[in-house]
Amino acid sequence: MIEPRLAAPAAGHGAPAATALARLSVMNFLNEVAADYPRAISFASGRPAEAFFAIDAWLEGIPRYFEHLAARDGRSAADVARLVGQYGRTNGLINDLVAAQLFADDGVPCTPERVVITAGCQEALTLCVQALCSAPGDVVLTRNPTYIGITGIAALAGIELVPLDDGAGDTAGAIERAVGMLAAEGRRARALYLIPSFDNPTGDTLSTAERVAIIDACRRHGIVVLEDNPYGMFRFEGVAPPPMAALDRHGVVVYLGTYSKTLCPAVRIGCAVVPETLFGDAAASRALIAQLGVRKSFVTVNSSQLNQALVGGVLLAEQGSLERIVAPARQHYRRNRDLFVARLAEEFPAGCGVSWNCPEGGFFLTLELPFAFGQTEVARCADEFQVVPLPMSFFALDDSQDRRVRMAFSNVSEAQIATGVAQFARFVHEMRVGARCRTVLA
Amino acid sequence: MIEPRLAAPAAGHGAPAATALARLSVMNFLNEVAADYPRAISFASGRPAEAFFAIDAWLEGIPRYFEHLAARDGRSAADVARLVGQYGRTNGLINDLVAAQLFADDGVPCTPERVVITAGCQEALTLCVQALCSAPGDVVLTRNPTYIGITGIAALAGIELVPLDDGAGDTAGAIERAVGMLAAEGRRARALYLIPSFDNPTGDTLSTAERVAIIDACRRHGIVVLEDNPYGMFRFEGVAPPPMAALDRHGVVVYLGTYSKTLCPAVRIGCAVVPETLFGDAAASRALIAQLGVRKSFVTVNSSQLNQALVGGVLLAEQGSLERIVAPARQHYRRNRDLFVARLAEEFPAGCGVSWNCPEGGFFLTLELPFAFGQTEVARCADEFQVVPLPMSFFALDDSQDRRVRMAFSNVSEAQIATGVAQFARFVHEMRVGARCRTVLA
Repeated sequence: MIEPRLAAPAAGHGAPAATALARLSVMNFLNEVAADYPRAISFASGRPAEAFFAIDAWLEGIPRYFEHLAARDGRSAADVARLVGQYGRTNGLINDLVAAQLFADDGVPCTPERVVITAGCQEALTLCVQALCSAPGDVVLTRNPTYIGITGIAALAGIELVPLDDGAGDTAGAIERAVGMLAAEGRRARALYLIPSFDNPTGDTLSTAERVAIIDACRRHGIVVLEDNPYGMFRFEGVAPPPMAALDRHGVVVYLGTYSKTLCPAVRIGCAVVPETLFGDAAASRALIAQLGVRKSFVTVNSSQLNQALVGGVLLAEQGSLERIVAPARQHYRRNRDLFVARLAEEFPAGCGVSWNCPEGGFFLTLELPFAFGQTEVARCADEFQVVPLPMSFFALDDSQDRRVRMAFSNVSEAQIATGVAQFARFVHEMRVGARCRTVLA
Repeated sequence: MIEPRLAAPAAGHGAPAATALARLSVMNFLNEVAADYPRAISFASGRPAEAFFAIDAWLEGIPRYFEHLAARDGRSAADVARLVGQYGRTNGLINDLVAAQLFADDGVPCTPERVVITAGCQEALTLCVQALCSAPGDVVLTRNPTYIGITGIAALAGIELVPLDDGAGDTAGAIERAVGMLAAEGRRARALYLIPSFDNPTGDTLSTAERVAIIDACRRHGIVVLEDNPYGMFRFEGVAPPPMAALDRHGVVVYLGTYSKTLCPAVRIGCAVVPETLFGDAAASRALIAQLGVRKSFVTVNSSQLNQALVGGVLLAEQGSLERIVAPARQHYRRNRDLFVARLAEEFPAGCGVSWNCPEGGFFLTLELPFAFGQTEVARCADEFQVVPLPMSFFALDDSQDRRVRMAFSNVSEAQIATGVAQFARFVHEMRVGARCRTVLA
């Protein structure tokens, strides 16, 4: 599978949302490419590096958490195990430990009662989008390109995504323009989804000034910012801008967290952190927390308390911070990024028409090509050059991304990067020679 | 908390589905009653008895499953652990073991590729209802009263539930009437939800003849039967009718399973089993399986592979059947049912106007009272008589259930049953004396 969150079979007949399914069938095409060319080096998957998963050690977190509750509540660990095995509180069991970790590691101001523990961050996103966009004409703003998880939710729930026209980097200005356009059509932006640090798919990070401007614009128009931060702990260098939730003084930002990258995806534990007031209204904040709980109770009832115990037990052992666990993986991602951009620089000299960003963290970088790169080109790359990059158009809401590629460097080896970039460079070279030939012949 | 699947805070402002939220606020009222009277004996919660949760032993299933995959695939157990820790197949990892167990224990004909593993059965229900009811005017048929999990999903998704008028036990006839009524309104029943064995909330079981008649009616009208079977393994006596999925010859029945009652809720593993053909159409069946996967990929991505490994490892140790694990709990539920009906018979002699069913299994029985039993009466029961029964009206789609009560006998002690039934009888006695006094005075 290429994209974990899209590890789904092709959509079939009777589907409600043609847009989503068209998009998904494109992703399915990519899965088929991967299946057809299993030896091709894949830069398509944004998975965490499983070499750093300490599953056996993390599983010891479960009995450790039982002991913790037993000591706290004056019960036997066996009694606690049975109670944790039972149905539990919809909004979560380990909210206190999660709140402390979000503050320690991400700088997110947070209290346990404002945390909703979810079955992975994707569930948090689903609950938030559906709770916020409940009326006809309610839309979600996104950057463009954007993470496929928000595109899919919106399409399946029949909620329209409106891409921001923020090409020049002025996201706040783009919000104002979108709000004006929507108002003229009787529609209303209820949420803005973004990954401000080491964006999936672009790798880009918003500056502190941009974050503040976005929060101000959203505050003016009553738009909730859904700040998704899966990669925040994977900063390789430079100074981290504060999370938007920490810059938020007026109850604009709902923070979305996950343990899929800091621990591993199989724990399926994420969270939403609702601000203390929603646009200054404490009752509205409590109502949103309640709404998320009601919706969750009819989707997953409550997040597995065994998985929560595992995460809780690891947090107890690590004294509330995942920094020690994350450090070796971060080193690996940094080395991979360094190697990736070094190989790109070797293969594509300045002025050759190929360029890329150099993200200060995360799992992804963006490559700009002098020609369109879509389904046909991926298939040719996999077939003739044994390498699978991901067309940025798969994440796009229009045709603006047709010449861009997302390269994931998170779960590949040094050798795969060296070989894969060289093979991709051969492909690009052949494409350009071909283009020149066509020009000469024309 | 009273009802596990409703362990949610009160719904707040901005909610999209007034009906659902009204219902949920009723359930919340009940949670508040439980919180206000913590010493009251509760017959309201339908939880499994946690005394039988062998959490430590079941956790050993995880490394056992790793060893199993390691031996099968010629890898090290450590490698397998890391791969299981990663994102995985949306539709599940342990489908082969689940398919074998469903056949062995429930008699459900089943192949791995038709199983979708979900984050608890509630997710399976959510995915199925939303995949099947994708057009305006698509409705879900239910019996009345019905499980609150289907009511909540439907309300939040904006899908109408149509209760069957099957008071005389003729569910198939009621389906025909409903289909006719809906057709006249330009609407269409796409699914029928039911718990045919030991129903939640009534405790009732459909006979084989009734099951066959329902399948035939649904086949005629292209209605998918969603057969929810959480209690099937908890039959105390008598001959089990086959599951509807086993009686289905034409691809009408989607079977919904869960490990929340046979193992424990914290594993959060359930499943949907799609028939080999959907109304005779194999491509439609594959399309539905694909649809469930696409929807799941945007809700929970995939079900926790650690939880799946736990269930898989238990199934390996138990050689594919949970019978040995279930037997002691079933004995407990049976003893509780026996004691409950014995105490009811002592407290309420024949002709006194109070009657009840005696389910051959499951967690619940229904009590009929000679007066209405709603919110006011629950509060009085809890306050003055220290016992909390559950008004059947909470599960009703009309006012037909106002004199009925759901009594859960699954997670209470013998002493609680003896005392609780006696206290409830005192309440009933006072209500009837009060009624007589009012009659005399009137």
